Amino acid sequence: MKNLHAPLYDALMTNIGQDPISFHVPGHKYGRVFYNASLPGFQSVLEMDATEVTGLDDLHAPEGVIKEAQDKAGEFFGSDETFFLVNGTTVGNLALILSVCQQGDQVIVQRNCHKSVLNGLELAGASPVFVSPSYESETNRYSKVTAASIEAALKKYPDSKAVILTYPDYFGRTFDLGAIAERVHHYDLPLLIDEAHGVQFQLGGLFPSTALEAGADAVVQSAHKMSPAMTMASYLHVKGKRVSVDRVRHYLQMLQSSSPSYPLMASLDLARSYMETWTKADEERLISFIKEIRELFNNYESFWTLLPSGPLDDPLKLTLEPEEMSGYALSEAFESEGIIPEMAVSHQLLLVLGLEPTFSIEELKTRLSAVESKLKKEKNHATIKQDQISFPPIQTLEWSYSYMQTLPEEIVGWERSVGRIASEAVIPYPPGIPLILKGERISKQHYKYVQLLIEQGARFQNATIEKGIRVFKGE
Amino acid sequence: MKNLHAPLYDALMTNIGQDPISFHVPGHKYGRVFYNASLPGFQSVLEMDATEVTGLDDLHAPEGVIKEAQDKAGEFFGSDETFFLVNGTTVGNLALILSVCQQGDQVIVQRNCHKSVLNGLELAGASPVFVSPSYESETNRYSKVTAASIEAALKKYPDSKAVILTYPDYFGRTFDLGAIAERVHHYDLPLLIDEAHGVQFQLGGLFPSTALEAGADAVVQSAHKMSPAMTMASYLHVKGKRVSVDRVRHYLQMLQSSSPSYPLMASLDLARSYMETWTKADEERLISFIKEIRELFNNYESFWTLLPSGPLDDPLKLTLEPEEMSGYALSEAFESEGIIPEMAVSHQLLLVLGLEPTFSIEELKTRLSAVESKLKKEKNHATIKQDQISFPPIQTLEWSYSYMQTLPEEIVGWERSVGRIASEAVIPYPPGIPLILKGERISKQHYKYVQLLIEQGARFQNATIEKGIRVFKGE
Repeated sequence: MKNLHAPLYDALMTNIGQDPISFHVPGHKYGRVFYNASLPGFQSVLEMDATEVTGLDDLHAPEGVIKEAQDKAGEFFGSDETFFLVNGTTVGNLALILSVCQQGDQVIVQRNCHKSVLNGLELAGASPVFVSPSYESETNRYSKVTAASIEAALKKYPDSKAVILTYPDYFGRTFDLGAIAERVHHYDLPLLIDEAHGVQFQLGGLFPSTALEAGADAVVQSAHKMSPAMTMASYLHVKGKRVSVDRVRHYLQMLQSSSPSYPLMASLDLARSYMETWTKADEERLISFIKEIRELFNNYESFWTLLPSGPLDDPLKLTLEPEEMSGYALSEAFESEGIIPEMAVSHQLLLVLGLEPTFSIEELKTRLSAVESKLKKEKNHATIKQDQISFPPIQTLEWSYSYMQTLPEEIVGWERSVGRIASEAVIPYPPGIPLILKGERISKQHYKYVQLLIEQGARFQNATIEKGIRVFKGE
Repeated sequence: MKNLHAPLYDALMTNIGQDPISFHVPGHKYGRVFYNASLPGFQSVLEMDATEVTGLDDLHAPEGVIKEAQDKAGEFFGSDETFFLVNGTTVGNLALILSVCQQGDQVIVQRNCHKSVLNGLELAGASPVFVSPSYESETNRYSKVTAASIEAALKKYPDSKAVILTYPDYFGRTFDLGAIAERVHHYDLPLLIDEAHGVQFQLGGLFPSTALEAGADAVVQSAHKMSPAMTMASYLHVKGKRVSVDRVRHYLQMLQSSSPSYPLMASLDLARSYMETWTKADEERLISFIKEIRELFNNYESFWTLLPSGPLDDPLKLTLEPEEMSGYALSEAFESEGIIPEMAVSHQLLLVLGLEPTFSIEELKTRLSAVESKLKKEKNHATIKQDQISFPPIQTLEWSYSYMQTLPEEIVGWERSVGRIASEAVIPYPPGIPLILKGERISKQHYKYVQLLIEQGARFQNATIEKGIRVFKGE
């Protein structure tokens, strides 16, 4: 058992321990309304589901235990200022973008960014300059972001206000961010990093270096993804003077609930404390668990290949490349035996481990054997087309977001969409990375690729994806 | 024990019951990392803290259990479409405002609205037209919004795109919303209601009528405030065609986390189920509990007056007017004996009850006697100045939000601030309602009132409130 130092969590325990008579919100009254009789499991967390009463501070004007908890996180992660986020990395990306640019400003951004980055650019009315990562044979994906490509964009768009990148990618792949930071800072621009998948890099040792270590000016991390915080709990770190802490604070108080969830905030406090007390023994246990898991997955070569994991990779991510079937089909086979993957894409399947062993290797072995039997029986898979879509190295949108706001829209069938300008992004989810951007002219390649993904069973957040796509009218 | 029908909650229970091997986020792996050994109370909710795996649907593209849960809520609340919110009523207000207006559009809005409404107007770049409520002797506050004042604003600003009101106010006070809806719809404008404090009105009986019943086109309700949902969980309801459900959905997916919290969503499902199974017996138990509490508070006439509660009032809210001391001082005396109020303002103290008795009257009696002894001992309170600030009946800002974005700012001491234009709102919290608006010219009355509140011990979310206020430079 860890020796915790979590001031916000402690304050919540003290608060409920005092047996307060609540004449305040929330209406469940620490779980006494409804839950303690009906759902005792739920009730235990509701004892922490407090509000801004004396002693519990205020996220939007912290000066007590929340400030203390944020400061402890800042110290651990090496930032100048750390903010607790209760609306996910989404709100961190939105707030950072709004804080560095205004209507019409150019911003250099990685093409395969998360949709929240695009949403931030749209909210700000910015003019994005998209840089595409290049193909990397080690990952068999377009995962490589280079200093040269960022430099090219900076030269072409020297008035840009910021550079926004994703590090690592969804599969845990990193790149030489230090070299990029050096180029970006040469132009005295802020480098903003969506490090949604990299909070655990702070543990060092077997992990790649963190974005802050590499020189980023501001970083957002999903504490819930790879460290043990509750879903929707994230950290936002600022370091140095290129990003205004005041502006970030302003936009966070605009975009985050004025009744932030205490269990979520406490889980951020606890996750930091957990990582702070990480030991060599914890690391060794994790390394040997990963080794066992990888050995096990390597036993099924006729069904999939496990991609190797090098120093640029997060060792907690395992990528399988299925043979003669799509990632979606393999995912289904896994799921039917109670092995639940993180994400399938056309040609790969992503599995994510936690920071501790959370299941027995024996149990996994049993379930994988069942998957094997199933796949053997069904073995008449067609060869899967593994086209990956490629994007122009540097690209801008056809129109500004503010102009687009004034245009009427219509839904057209896919076959009639080529050449039109999309008024909605097309986003398979996960990973939540747009294939077609809002404001992008739809190409034949887009059209074909979306059809292929639909056939293979990809999920989209677009309501009318089967029928067609929303485009602007009257061009 | 209630007979629950909560499809999303059920799906979460089924999911964990299947003992999945999680190769996905969140990193706590249903609480198995860290919590089950260290914090078993926390762990029970983490078994619900899932992600968008098969069977658990997707808030941003619902077609399974989340859709079913939202539809059930829509049916119960009488909307055409109901959205689950995981970023509070804040995000509902932002999304509604962004969906009804664009840069430069006039919007009629109640002066004493919640800061999230102002933030929404700023994000949209709208031009707010503020209407002040008038003084009401029954509440001793500026709480009365009338059809005549809204009509006057509509006549003066006929190009407005929407009317946004707060119903009920923080103290549970309502007004004739039906008459206002009729005037607003005469202009074919949407009426948007921040019903943060009114979710329980749906229970009918002892409660005032709901905003949807009164004719509102879209409504946001904090399910956590007065019904038993988790903090930060809210409902957004749309009825009729004046508000575009598509646009609301678009802005919600922009502004809410792409990893929404399942415990929060499940609590929305459960809160609806709880209210749906509300019986006459529940109502009677509540009425008799309220009666006992009111009788008890009426026994301390030399220390405070309990304001009467009529048909326009939420019976779950009790307002005390302290004698010879401020609301803040009385709040402190209560808190020192473990009776925790919802909010103090200069001349009043607000207490909020839940939908069930959650403490014993005997225990409250004991603690109130302790408060009484304490107050008797300390009885040398000065008479408290109870100036309330009044605002112009109809008011606009000095400059547009987009122009303000281009101006530099400085902090000036309060005595030098009169006549300058505020670049930050001044917001005592709770209730989170601005005294000075961003873009408003600071008056002597503002200055004096803020000083009075600081002296009396009000809390503000403004970091530099003691020193001064942020204003625009170079006017």
